Amino acid sequence: MSAETVYTLGELATLLDVELRGDPALRIDGLSTLKSATAGKLSFLSNPRYAGQLADCRASAVILDPEFVDACRISRLLSPVPYVTYAKASQLFAPPRSQSSGVHASAFVDPTARLGSGVSIGANAVIEADAVIGDGSSIGAGSYVGARSKVGSNCSIFANVTLYHDVTVGNDVILHSGVVVGADGFGFAFDGQRSIKIAQLGGVNIGDDVEIGAGSTIDRGALDDTIIECGVKIDNQVQIAHNCVIGAHTIICGCSAIAGSTTIGRFCTIGGAVGVIGHLHIADRVMISAMSLVSQSIPDAGVYSSGTGLLESKEWKRNIVRFRQLDDMAKRLRELERLTLGK
Amino acid sequence: MSAETVYTLGELATLLDVELRGDPALRIDGLSTLKSATAGKLSFLSNPRYAGQLADCRASAVILDPEFVDACRISRLLSPVPYVTYAKASQLFAPPRSQSSGVHASAFVDPTARLGSGVSIGANAVIEADAVIGDGSSIGAGSYVGARSKVGSNCSIFANVTLYHDVTVGNDVILHSGVVVGADGFGFAFDGQRSIKIAQLGGVNIGDDVEIGAGSTIDRGALDDTIIECGVKIDNQVQIAHNCVIGAHTIICGCSAIAGSTTIGRFCTIGGAVGVIGHLHIADRVMISAMSLVSQSIPDAGVYSSGTGLLESKEWKRNIVRFRQLDDMAKRLRELERLTLGK
Amino acid sequence: MSAETVYTLGELATLLDVELRGDPALRIDGLSTLKSATAGKLSFLSNPRYAGQLADCRASAVILDPEFVDACRISRLLSPVPYVTYAKASQLFAPPRSQSSGVHASAFVDPTARLGSGVSIGANAVIEADAVIGDGSSIGAGSYVGARSKVGSNCSIFANVTLYHDVTVGNDVILHSGVVVGADGFGFAFDGQRSIKIAQLGGVNIGDDVEIGAGSTIDRGALDDTIIECGVKIDNQVQIAHNCVIGAHTIICGCSAIAGSTTIGRFCTIGGAVGVIGHLHIADRVMISAMSLVSQSIPDAGVYSSGTGLLESKEWKRNIVRFRQLDDMAKRLRELERLTLGK
Repeated sequence: MSAETVYTLGELATLLDVELRGDPALRIDGLSTLKSATAGKLSFLSNPRYAGQLADCRASAVILDPEFVDACRISRLLSPVPYVTYAKASQLFAPPRSQSSGVHASAFVDPTARLGSGVSIGANAVIEADAVIGDGSSIGAGSYVGARSKVGSNCSIFANVTLYHDVTVGNDVILHSGVVVGADGFGFAFDGQRSIKIAQLGGVNIGDDVEIGAGSTIDRGALDDTIIECGVKIDNQVQIAHNCVIGAHTIICGCSAIAGSTTIGRFCTIGGAVGVIGHLHIADRVMISAMSLVSQSIPDAGVYSSGTGLLESKEWKRNIVRFRQLDDMAKRLRELERLTLGK
Repeated sequence: MSAETVYTLGELATLLDVELRGDPALRIDGLSTLKSATAGKLSFLSNPRYAGQLADCRASAVILDPEFVDACRISRLLSPVPYVTYAKASQLFAPPRSQSSGVHASAFVDPTARLGSGVSIGANAVIEADAVIGDGSSIGAGSYVGARSKVGSNCSIFANVTLYHDVTVGNDVILHSGVVVGADGFGFAFDGQRSIKIAQLGGVNIGDDVEIGAGSTIDRGALDDTIIECGVKIDNQVQIAHNCVIGAHTIICGCSAIAGSTTIGRFCTIGGAVGVIGHLHIADRVMISAMSLVSQSIPDAGVYSSGTGLLESKEWKRNIVRFRQLDDMAKRLRELERLTLGK
Repeated sequence: MSAETVYTLGELATLLDVELRGDPALRIDGLSTLKSATAGKLSFLSNPRYAGQLADCRASAVILDPEFVDACRISRLLSPVPYVTYAKASQLFAPPRSQSSGVHASAFVDPTARLGSGVSIGANAVIEADAVIGDGSSIGAGSYVGARSKVGSNCSIFANVTLYHDVTVGNDVILHSGVVVGADGFGFAFDGQRSIKIAQLGGVNIGDDVEIGAGSTIDRGALDDTIIECGVKIDNQVQIAHNCVIGAHTIICGCSAIAGSTTIGRFCTIGGAVGVIGHLHIADRVMISAMSLVSQSIPDAGVYSSGTGLLESKEWKRNIVRFRQLDDMAKRLRELERLTLGK
């Protein structure tokens, strides 16, 4: 953790808007798990399974649900949603996102670009013609904002991010290093001999409060825009193809790939390394387990999976041989039933 | 879409070399789908399934097969390959790839590098010693071209692309942001205690008319080159390991991974998130469906798949338990057949 | 291969510490496989399966096990571990990693950063406040080292790498282009309406002699550090989530994804495109085959797999239909056994 940030416990109770039981003068200089906490740290109990760790916790204070108020003797911050309170506390201890506002001497900002107030443009960043950067946003070192692209206010674009031309990013958006927004969708017309490129004339539209992890790629649309609605959280190395629509507040875990023109609903959770083929519609509140392949539309909320589960390779090999015989086995079983049961 | 590009319909018919039925003076300022088109747009019918949308289409004109010539009343461009004609039309409306030629003041070009005529080197790009950039090629902002690497003519290398040293790129190649060509292949010799690095002394050879999507990586060979033949189209976040050979005009969809020394034939289609293990030979015109694992060579053209298909998780769990029993089930079925059928 | 590097065979025998049988004056200008070698090349036999190629090999010399000493007539370097000797020889022919030491005029180095002796900072690289770069390390063009991050000595950080703030990298580490170390782990607390970001306050700690391939991402920890122990080798486009611990000398092949808080043991081999879900413990010396999903902890060394194997799609479709009926089939089989066998 960086340069020390210190609050009194009383200040934290006020900032987090929770009830304090204990000493408001305690100095808190960081957060920690129950298990590894030391003096000066604020810890939290969000999963009741770990309540047993409260007794031995060496933190100076702990965030917990009022039902556990008597389960420990150290100072307490009482919250009915301790994990949410921990999330808010974590933000208070985060290092500042950019050291200073202003345009670094080594950055290139096209004279026609418009920068809001309090904008920070990092070293060797490049802002192209007619781009717009909203108030309080920071563009990291080496990042690129293409012509006519618009970044909203209070965004954090880390180092080495690439926004192509004609891309729109909302407010309070976080883009991590290596993100590429607006590269051409993958579209070709095969003329019998070779693949003719279909120019990708749409853009990308990213809503407010979206976060996109390192190395993820969001392609521009063929004709209309690719759309990431507000509150969507996308982990690292996720691929969103052209003309997808990702519904508000959906979460997509690392290394998943969504093929072109697929629409995913709101409040979905797409596990890690999931594949979704193109032109599908996924309903709201669908959960897909890790590494599943979604090959059909899903009209109803629910939890869905594919795959075989992990086996020791020797055992696995015996079973995949049988997988190839499954249809045959099913027919033989049916025949035996006919003979034995007469049905 | 960017600054307005306008053609008359007559100009488009000439540029696309197709027959016009309608008003050559109509002004066309963009492309659109049949469904969302408005006045001024050119649309297209490539999939006959959508022919029903022609009647209500509000586009100013439409590209279609002569067999549908009477299916709508708006102006028509007649093409026996409407999707190919649409692809060509899309290129006419694409924004120019680089604003201007010349070396940006903030770029670094080694004095021994050679730049062709009409080359554009973007802001903060770096061109190392003895690199060669062919006529009319553009190198995007922040991109890096290593020592002795050669880029052909009329290439578009977008922002933040990395070419290592001793890499060869053909003509008319498009490399999207985040692409890395020529990083070391993954090779080690384990000495019983640790992994000793095998220096990767080969290069990468990319043919003409290749496009590689954002974040894809093509490793350099161990001794010989990794080879991407002409016309290959690679989507985003694809990994091509050292000493692979990807045959001409093959298409590799997003997030697929090809392990080392595998040869893939010509005119193949590798679906998204496919894995291909190393040292295999895949024939020409093989199609692999999304998220399949190719673990053996494929000597014959055809369509291949792996995986279980998606199920609701409750149902899936019941079945994967049985997957682990499959070999046992097969033996028990055989025994019942012996008893019941006497065979 | 780059500018010519030449050794005499005698020099190579000395540098590699192996016995020479043949002409020490032979000039060797590169390495080659047995099959494609020409005069001037040094080849190697590591897999006895290829011993038959020795007879026709046109290399000037070959590295081989003493048991094959009489299997060819060209000069020989005798090594009991020919593949390890080849690895060491390959390093002798690798081009130098950076042309020169010093800070490129276009780079930005914060005045509070500390650079060791013989450090090379490439064009347009950025080194932030209080960062430390150890002796003999090179930072590639366009790379970014965040505030307070520490890079050890003799590291090779290629072009366009991103290290966030407060990241620690050991000695002799190689990071390829597009690598991102220290982006925020993917952590949110859902408050019923939206996902509240959990600031990621931990760092990343990378041990000595680690290599990380192009486009791979290693996230910073939520509270404690994410840890990559010494000697770990990570291929391209691998994702390591927050608070993972990867044990010493483990190998992770391309496109694998390890979810948060998972611990992987020492000397493991994780195949390509493998997924490992979060909060698991994997023992030492575990091997996971390509594209498997690890969904439970693995307490014992061994080889593990999942998936179905590849089939022609027609046959595959017949069998996955049956996969959905597997539980039903198992019950029907049991019933037949009851009737037929009376058990």
